[in-house]
Parts: sequence; C-alpha cells; structure tokens
Amino acid sequence: MGDPAGIGPEVIVKALGDDALRGMGRWVICGNATPLQARLQQAGLKVMVRQATLADVARDDAAPGDGEVVLLREEKWEGVAAFDANSAQSGAASLAYVERAIALARDESVSEAWRASAIATGPISKEAWFAAGQTRYPGHTELFAERFGSEKFAMMFAAEPRRDLIGGASSGLEGAGLHCVLVTAHVPVREVANVLTTPRVLDVIVLANEAMQGLGFASPRIGVCGLNPHAGERGILGSEDDAIIRPAVEAARGQGVNVSGPWSGDTIFQGALARDGKPARDFDLVVAMYHDQGLIPVKLLAWDRAVNMTIGLTHRGRRVLRTSPDHGTAFAIAGKNCADPGSMAAALRMAAVSGLRTA
Amino acid sequence: MGDPAGIGPEVIVKALGDDALRGMGRWVICGNATPLQARLQQAGLKVMVRQATLADVARDDAAPGDGEVVLLREEKWEGVAAFDANSAQSGAASLAYVERAIALARDESVSEAWRASAIATGPISKEAWFAAGQTRYPGHTELFAERFGSEKFAMMFAAEPRRDLIGGASSGLEGAGLHCVLVTAHVPVREVANVLTTPRVLDVIVLANEAMQGLGFASPRIGVCGLNPHAGERGILGSEDDAIIRPAVEAARGQGVNVSGPWSGDTIFQGALARDGKPARDFDLVVAMYHDQGLIPVKLLAWDRAVNMTIGLTHRGRRVLRTSPDHGTAFAIAGKNCADPGSMAAALRMAAVSGLRTA
Repeated sequence: MGDPAGIGPEVIVKALGDDALRGMGRWVICGNATPLQARLQQAGLKVMVRQATLADVARDDAAPGDGEVVLLREEKWEGVAAFDANSAQSGAASLAYVERAIALARDESVSEAWRASAIATGPISKEAWFAAGQTRYPGHTELFAERFGSEKFAMMFAAEPRRDLIGGASSGLEGAGLHCVLVTAHVPVREVANVLTTPRVLDVIVLANEAMQGLGFASPRIGVCGLNPHAGERGILGSEDDAIIRPAVEAARGQGVNVSGPWSGDTIFQGALARDGKPARDFDLVVAMYHDQGLIPVKLLAWDRAVNMTIGLTHRGRRVLRTSPDHGTAFAIAGKNCADPGSMAAALRMAAVSGLRTA
Repeated sequence: MGDPAGIGPEVIVKALGDDALRGMGRWVICGNATPLQARLQQAGLKVMVRQATLADVARDDAAPGDGEVVLLREEKWEGVAAFDANSAQSGAASLAYVERAIALARDESVSEAWRASAIATGPISKEAWFAAGQTRYPGHTELFAERFGSEKFAMMFAAEPRRDLIGGASSGLEGAGLHCVLVTAHVPVREVANVLTTPRVLDVIVLANEAMQGLGFASPRIGVCGLNPHAGERGILGSEDDAIIRPAVEAARGQGVNVSGPWSGDTIFQGALARDGKPARDFDLVVAMYHDQGLIPVKLLAWDRAVNMTIGLTHRGRRVLRTSPDHGTAFAIAGKNCADPGSMAAALRMAAVSGLRTA
C-alpha cells in the first residue's frame, strides 16, 4: 500500500479498477482497510475487496481466484482513522506493510497457495521511516536486497509505452517506451570509474536479460552504454570502455545473451525506443553505467509515469520481481482523488507479467 | 558549404529554397559552384545565386540585399567537377571554405558591408581534413576558437522545436525543444570532477546567457545541472555540487543572470522542454556538466535534427555565433536528393536570428 497518508491507496484502487489490468493477476494488498475503502468510495469504484488476516492466509490452501483482490489487513493499524504525513505512525505502518509483502514471498508460515511471485510497492516516505526509527535502509531497494539475501541486484526502469493500459493525461512525449538498467546508482561521478568492474557489468547484463525474459522478451536485444564520451573513442577519451565494459559484453555473449556494446551513451537511446506498438529499432534494453546516464532518458520520456524495479531477487531459485511507481507519496494531493494512477498501473502490470512467468 | 562530396550543398540549397527562411538574412555561401548548381537543379529549386570572388567583395561597399544569396567562389576549386568522399581534395576544399567564412567575419580586407555576423558550417569529414594534411584541429570548434582567439568558449545545442520551419519527416518526438550548453565536452568521466572549476562553470553560464539573449530570450531562465546523482543530495553523494557549482550559480546571479541550481540532472530536463509553441515550464536553457548529461536528452529529442553551436566567439567585441547541423556528411546518400534539410535549416535560422542582433 505504501504510505497510508500518501496517494498509494488511491492509485492502487484506481489502477485495479481497470478490469483488464485486474484480470491479469491475483492481488493481495498489504495494508489496512480505512484508507483503502475511503479511496474506493471517493473514486466511485466498485472493486470487490475480500479482507483477510495473516492467520487466515496461513491455514488457507486455496489461492485467490483470477482477478480477485484481497486486503491482507495489518491488524495493528486497523481502527486508526487517519495518518499524518511524515509521522512515526504512518512510517511504521508503511514499513509493516512492506515486511508483510516480503513475508508473503518468503515466509515458511505462508501456504504455497498464497506465495507472492512478484511484489509491487506503493510510494513510501523515507522521512516517515526515519521518524519511525528505521534508519538502516535508505529505501525499498536496500531493504529488499537484504531480506532476500541478494548480493547481486540492480535497479531497472521502464518508461511504459502502453498508452492503452496506462491512460491518464498526455505528457506530450507519449508513445515512446524504454527499458534501462543501472550498473551503478547512487555513486558520486568522481567514483564511478573506480567502482566499475567487469564482473559487475556482466552480472547486471545477465540479471537484466533474465528480468526481461520474465517480462516477455524471449531473447531481449541488450545494448550496453560506454562510460566515456563516444564510448571512449578507441581509448582517446578514456580506457574503461574497452578495458572494463567490452570484456563483460563479450563474456555475456559467450553465455548466449543477445548483447552488444559499448555504444556511445548519447546515441544509444534513440534506437531503444519502442513506439506506436512496435519494438525499438535496435535494443529492447539499455545497460547504463551510472545514475544520470540511465535516468535522464527515462525521466525525460516518462517523468512520474515510469516503473522502478529491483531485479536479482530470488526465493528458492524463483525470480521475484519488485516493481514500484517512479513517483513519491505526493502528500499535498493525497485524499483529493486527483492522483494519476498511470505509473502504479504500469508497475502492477509488469509485476503481473513477471509473476505469471515465475509462479 | 562543408564537404562538397557530402550532403552539405544539398541541404543548404533545400533550406534556402524556403522563402521565409531565406528572407531572414543575407546569405554568403563559401564554396564552389559545381556541387551547388547540381543540387539546385536536382532539387528543382529556383533560388537566384549571385556569384562573387573575394576580390569582388573586397572592393564592394554595397552589402547583399535582404534575402539575397551570394556564392563566394573558392577560385582554386572551380572547374573541379567531382570530389571523392574522404579525399585530400575534398578535405582541402572544405577547409578552405571554412577559412573563407572566418575571413568574412574577421579579415580587414573584407569591407564592412560584407562582414559576417554569424557563421553556419556544413558538415565536414575529419578524415578528409586529415587526408589533406590538417591534423591540428579535431573539428570545427577548436579551429574557430583558435582563429577568433577565444579562450572562453563552449559547445551549445538546440533541439529545435519549430516544426513549421524545420519541416521534414516525423521523429515521433516532435514538438519538444531544448537548449543545452556543456561545461566540459570531450573529457573522460574519470576526469570530469577534476577539471570542473567554479570560474569555468561561471564563464559558461555567462556565455550561454549572452548567446540566448542573441537568440531572442530577453532574460533567459537558466537551470544548472548538478554533477552527481540528485545534485549530491546535500553532500552525501559528492561534494562538487555544493563546493564548485553552487558558488558559480550564486556569482552569476550576482551579475544579474536569471539562473538557479544545481538541480538533479535526471529531473531538470522535463522542465526545460518548450512544446506546442509555448516556452518551457522552468528553464529556457540547461547547463550540463559533461558530455552525455547534456547530449543524451538533446539527441533523444532531436537526433540528427539538432543544432550545434560554438558560443564565446567575438570580433571587436561583437558576438559571432557559429552554428551547424548536428549530422555528418552522409556520403552514402550524397547526390541522391533525399537528404533532410531540417537540421541545416534550423542552423541557418539560428545564425540569422543571432546575426541580426549583433550586426
């Protein structure tokens, strides 16, 4: 559900109000009833939501039906009518919801029928997490990596091209879709060249290849960015492109991955845009070396309509994709019934597609 | 004219075949007649081209009339019917054309009436320049900086938003315009943080402010990118944003420039897109710290339809803007009458706008 004081509950019910999207999966919302019912009513949506507790789930061997929506209530927070933005209460609640979702994917106490095969997280407030005393994880990604015991994981983004599914207002750049994964993320530019290694680049290529297969690309065409201008221009503008990145690309090709590069960062993205329902010209996915290299095109195309993913999470060898909308809690407009559910709808769709392929 | 064996002559005559664009300036093409007349004839265009030599120009005190097109013949190359791609002959010719254009802007022998107030360069082949023995300059920018004695100059780009003027085929992302300038250009990522200085950032802000005023923005709103992810996130992700970039922004504000930053590189560009004939939401120009940070959005939006500019060139205190299309010689399609003149038309338009304001 994300932060109950933010727009999470609203965009979830609006997204699941779409029959086509709801029919793609079996949905278990970890949260509590008060904000969910309020937003459903406010939006005038007639979505049947069955309520259950973790105890119910533990002894239930029948999975939810296709298209069914279950609210897995976080009992501790029921009866609380309102949460304040950035409060310890809302932070603790949103943290509890995430832990519950992770438990659904991993805990032995959960029956196999209820096992989550993908997780979509609503927007949380780090400030609220901090107010609740949670200072260990700067965000979802690190929490998920630790809970799943993943040493190899990466942030992936999709600028969702499916106008028919995402709906909402026009950004003026609609119709262009892009998948992108980051080799490094929150690293100062000064350090990027120092932390890049061939094994890390190779790991990210392989993880992204698997994740894209989970999203329905049988043999995804992967283009890898160079680090330096013009991918180093044969060593004139930097050595890492040939010394670090190229060997990783070659090793991945040796493992059967349909990958090429390093390509110049400023020219690769045009060939990686899926438009008008057609695949991209050259690449289904771009591997970016650092934060802005990958996120500038993603946010330019999709702004707050992109999908953020954690790839590399597994449980007993099964892939568990984590997706989320690429926008925040938007406390200022929470409860006003004016939030755009496009990004959450895209996150739910990608979770459903990936989850079906790993279930 | 650029390389006479490339598409330069074709896109020039096609661009100047547009009455509205031709009427914006007085045009002196430095080149030779054979390719120009061939492309005019092939395109079926009736553009009057008066021919003149440098000797004619030197003794002529009457400037060309508004909308007039003059071919300033490079006598040495007249009579040569064809040039080969990447040959010493075509390289020497294209170099001679550029030097002639620079002379029109700077040489004492040129009468004031014929003084160039802006220069648009056609695409050249560096390989042809090298074949002709010119190994000192990797490209136009460095040659212009040296000839003009400029110690402070920068590369600026425009993703041209004016569909009505640029015409041509749809890229699917039309209607979004962006101006961007680079603080560093062909620098390895490992070195970027080391070469960034507050004076350099300040210089580029001030140069870009002047250049944008020349392009018709009375008080351009300038947004400056941070170097690091999230502009350093208060020092957690790097020190340069606060230590180097912020003081430059503050100094420029002290000089009356309408500038702000540093902003996170991945979020600044959405607010810098002019669309549907309206100004951008936040910024008329973005100052990028390094090559890919600025060129990824420019090439994503405009691909080979962008305009490349050298700013910071002056002669006797007057600004001389140099513009060029952001595509190459395209030897493979030269002479086939299928080249898209959109980028050259945009380069000519920007040169005309800037030139009129400095003449």
